[in-house]
Amino acid sequence: MRALLSVSDKNGIIEFARGLEKLGWEIISTGGTYKVLSAAGIKVIEIDEVTKFPECFEGRVKTLNPYVHGGILHKRGDKAHVAQAKELGVEGIDLVCVNLYPFKETIERTDDFGEIIENIDIGGPTMVRSAAKNFNDVLIVTDVNDYEDVLGALENGNDSMEFRRGLMIKAFEHTAAYDSMIANYMNGRFNDGFGEYQFITGKKVFQTRYGENPHQKGALYEFDKHFTNNFKQVKGEASFNNINDVNGALKIASSFGDENAVCIVKHGNPCGFAIKGTLLESYVEALKCDPVSAFGGVVAVNGIVDKELAEKMNEIFLEVVMAADFTAEALEVFGKKKRLKLFAQGGEKLVMSKDSHDFKHVDGGFVFQNSDCICDNEVHNAQKKSKLTASEQEMKDLEIAWKVAGLTKSNCVVYVKDSAMVAVGMGMTSRVDAAQCALKKAKEMGLDVSGAAMASEAFFPFRDSIDAAAEAGVKAIIEPGGSIRDDEVIEAADEHGISLYFTTVRHFLH
Amino acid sequence: MRALLSVSDKNGIIEFARGLEKLGWEIISTGGTYKVLSAAGIKVIEIDEVTKFPECFEGRVKTLNPYVHGGILHKRGDKAHVAQAKELGVEGIDLVCVNLYPFKETIERTDDFGEIIENIDIGGPTMVRSAAKNFNDVLIVTDVNDYEDVLGALENGNDSMEFRRGLMIKAFEHTAAYDSMIANYMNGRFNDGFGEYQFITGKKVFQTRYGENPHQKGALYEFDKHFTNNFKQVKGEASFNNINDVNGALKIASSFGDENAVCIVKHGNPCGFAIKGTLLESYVEALKCDPVSAFGGVVAVNGIVDKELAEKMNEIFLEVVMAADFTAEALEVFGKKKRLKLFAQGGEKLVMSKDSHDFKHVDGGFVFQNSDCICDNEVHNAQKKSKLTASEQEMKDLEIAWKVAGLTKSNCVVYVKDSAMVAVGMGMTSRVDAAQCALKKAKEMGLDVSGAAMASEAFFPFRDSIDAAAEAGVKAIIEPGGSIRDDEVIEAADEHGISLYFTTVRHFLH
Repeated sequence: MRALLSVSDKNGIIEFARGLEKLGWEIISTGGTYKVLSAAGIKVIEIDEVTKFPECFEGRVKTLNPYVHGGILHKRGDKAHVAQAKELGVEGIDLVCVNLYPFKETIERTDDFGEIIENIDIGGPTMVRSAAKNFNDVLIVTDVNDYEDVLGALENGNDSMEFRRGLMIKAFEHTAAYDSMIANYMNGRFNDGFGEYQFITGKKVFQTRYGENPHQKGALYEFDKHFTNNFKQVKGEASFNNINDVNGALKIASSFGDENAVCIVKHGNPCGFAIKGTLLESYVEALKCDPVSAFGGVVAVNGIVDKELAEKMNEIFLEVVMAADFTAEALEVFGKKKRLKLFAQGGEKLVMSKDSHDFKHVDGGFVFQNSDCICDNEVHNAQKKSKLTASEQEMKDLEIAWKVAGLTKSNCVVYVKDSAMVAVGMGMTSRVDAAQCALKKAKEMGLDVSGAAMASEAFFPFRDSIDAAAEAGVKAIIEPGGSIRDDEVIEAADEHGISLYFTTVRHFLH
Repeated sequence: MRALLSVSDKNGIIEFARGLEKLGWEIISTGGTYKVLSAAGIKVIEIDEVTKFPECFEGRVKTLNPYVHGGILHKRGDKAHVAQAKELGVEGIDLVCVNLYPFKETIERTDDFGEIIENIDIGGPTMVRSAAKNFNDVLIVTDVNDYEDVLGALENGNDSMEFRRGLMIKAFEHTAAYDSMIANYMNGRFNDGFGEYQFITGKKVFQTRYGENPHQKGALYEFDKHFTNNFKQVKGEASFNNINDVNGALKIASSFGDENAVCIVKHGNPCGFAIKGTLLESYVEALKCDPVSAFGGVVAVNGIVDKELAEKMNEIFLEVVMAADFTAEALEVFGKKKRLKLFAQGGEKLVMSKDSHDFKHVDGGFVFQNSDCICDNEVHNAQKKSKLTASEQEMKDLEIAWKVAGLTKSNCVVYVKDSAMVAVGMGMTSRVDAAQCALKKAKEMGLDVSGAAMASEAFFPFRDSIDAAAEAGVKAIIEPGGSIRDDEVIEAADEHGISLYFTTVRHFLH
């Protein structure tokens, strides 16, 4: 049996080659891999011996050769193939171990287009695809982490059809991901990220127990190891809906730098948020906004949860706490709650991935766009439209309300007082309804909205919501502006002694 | 100059080859393409002459050869490359025209795994990738629709770097899409659709003016030409948010077979729905539910919009009407409305794509799941839990309410009376709030909820929503059941003389 080893990542290749040698395999190799293996004392056949053709054009053509690909591709169970191979002097290659030129590392390192082009591997993917096509007769190894399993399977005669098939699937995943990355890179560089094709490639992090509902299967896929590196399931397993809720809660809780932000989310929308002197105080205030919705909710904490906070959280039923981290004492406290799940990122404060694009499935395809971003200066640069100017605390409340509103499903209206959300209306078809439902609810909960700041992620089309806000005691309002009735809105604010700011930026979120 | 033509799809290849011949190009070709071109009287060099090696293993190895790939890959501007090419007898190949074995058609036609494997093209993608890598010196043509442009560019000396680069990007899109399809197919066949990698590949339908908000770029991408075939922009251009809203409205309006369903959507959620004897009646009733939200809304009509319906629709400002089609008279009526957009599918009734999976972006990756489906028999097989049985009309209303609730953002509660939605609460963090806001709104609108049927897409945790529904006059309720307090809910229904059905299926939608 003969194995062809040609790897860009040399990790573990010596051990793998030694293992194959021990099992009686002949090793064929190319350029760099040949040198490494020879230096390690392994007997290696140079590729030229197989190809009967010199490596040429600075390595651009090495393995694109009928002796290599005939050796891989001919069917061992087909007499005509075997006879033809013999006649042509084509010898079998029964294992191909290849990993590709590091295109990703190259584009992360340099903008030099010539260098980038040179790092598009041609021979590698071809061998991978050839061997994958003939997985019936050939083992295709594309992952350094599979070396041991492959040796084990060969040693024990366990290289079953299923095992080979698994390697084949991995091989096509490898080449599909590689060319998808190249196409996306080229479209990013030359077509502003919106080329004729869009490739969204994810690597599985874990399968969830089910999808959005029990009759649906579901899984989480990641780009660039974001979840592998930043999502530790400390206690319990994340459900499909947990991941979605955590995403919403994380975005809000991490939007205020290092501040002690706590956000409570239910069904993807915030039902509590506060930034106070300590995380404990923030949580207590966040919970006040809507303790009914918070029941079974997902909490994101921008920091490390300690014993005291854990004890407070244990007073009600929460489904998930997501935090930068947990102290050992906090974990002990939470241990008492069977159904509570704990997820940590592992740092001091929460971090977001901040993907450059997002997308949404619609039946028959998807919509794709540049990610939205709520910039810090949107509030600071907002235009004052009213006679009155907001106080310092009101300005702070406006900023919080604005950011939370931009991360809440449209239509939404957010009310914030003393750095804590006191009312929120969201996800409704009418903005007036969202504004009014929020106020009604706050009243029922005995929350005092007077003195609060209010934000709307899109403009108020009429003065009615301003009038209702004034009646509830709202003192400052922020919105994008842009309605043809902006004058009436400004007039209403001035009538009621409310400060009014226009950001000129809209943040619809659906 | 020499061109290598090797195509699976032979459309237009004779004309293309003739065009190249006329421009003085030599043509090299393989198997089937060689025969077609020779038969048309074109002078063709057989690939064997170039490779100096016979085609072998039933065509598995034809072009995987250093004379082919050296001919493509050597840099024409590099003296050492040119000298080496001369020394090795490698002649330049300056244009590669390849399209791949029809893997997609194969998997649509057969389940025979051997045949499917045989239809994985190895030589083709390799030539495509080689030529794309060396696009500096080589034209890579992968699309039948580009033949004319390529000939034109060559004729007029317009094969600029930008032109070649465009072909290169297309080439990598071609191979990326091909291998993504193979990997997804294998994962579908052997890993239940949830392999280690997930590839979501879309082809651009059109770029939208902007994304969800004006500062975001956006575009629509499709699978399998769904939008190309079923989405005609009859008047106006769809915005990013229109596409999302249309998707929501379409799903609901097409959920009732051939019935005259009309759905009005705002921000992705329904604010009106009805099924009456005619589409006009359905629209009139749908509009009553929430005419305020319907302002600037998106309407989906399960049928053909005629003059009368168009005139009715023109009475208010709608942003989009999506229908199976429009009569010529209707189009004339709508012509008066400048800002109104009209989209049609082109049939008699609306159709949905019914993708097998859906997905949602979360920062750092995406969640992926089997699509939800609200089956017709969920209502028919629902378990009666109350003493009372629903009447025939109530049963019909329950079915409508249930389906609409399953396609409305959670938490939601839908009230339907005489086949028209009379109240809806959606997208809220609390189910009680959704139920109550809906009733409050209906009251304000002067809508009579008494006698209505009510649906909740997930179970009612307490009896409070049942009590409130009873007070409003609701007569029949459908929900999944499954709360630990189901007994109290059933008791409440019986107390109030309400019929209550459990479906046992939940339909969260976020």
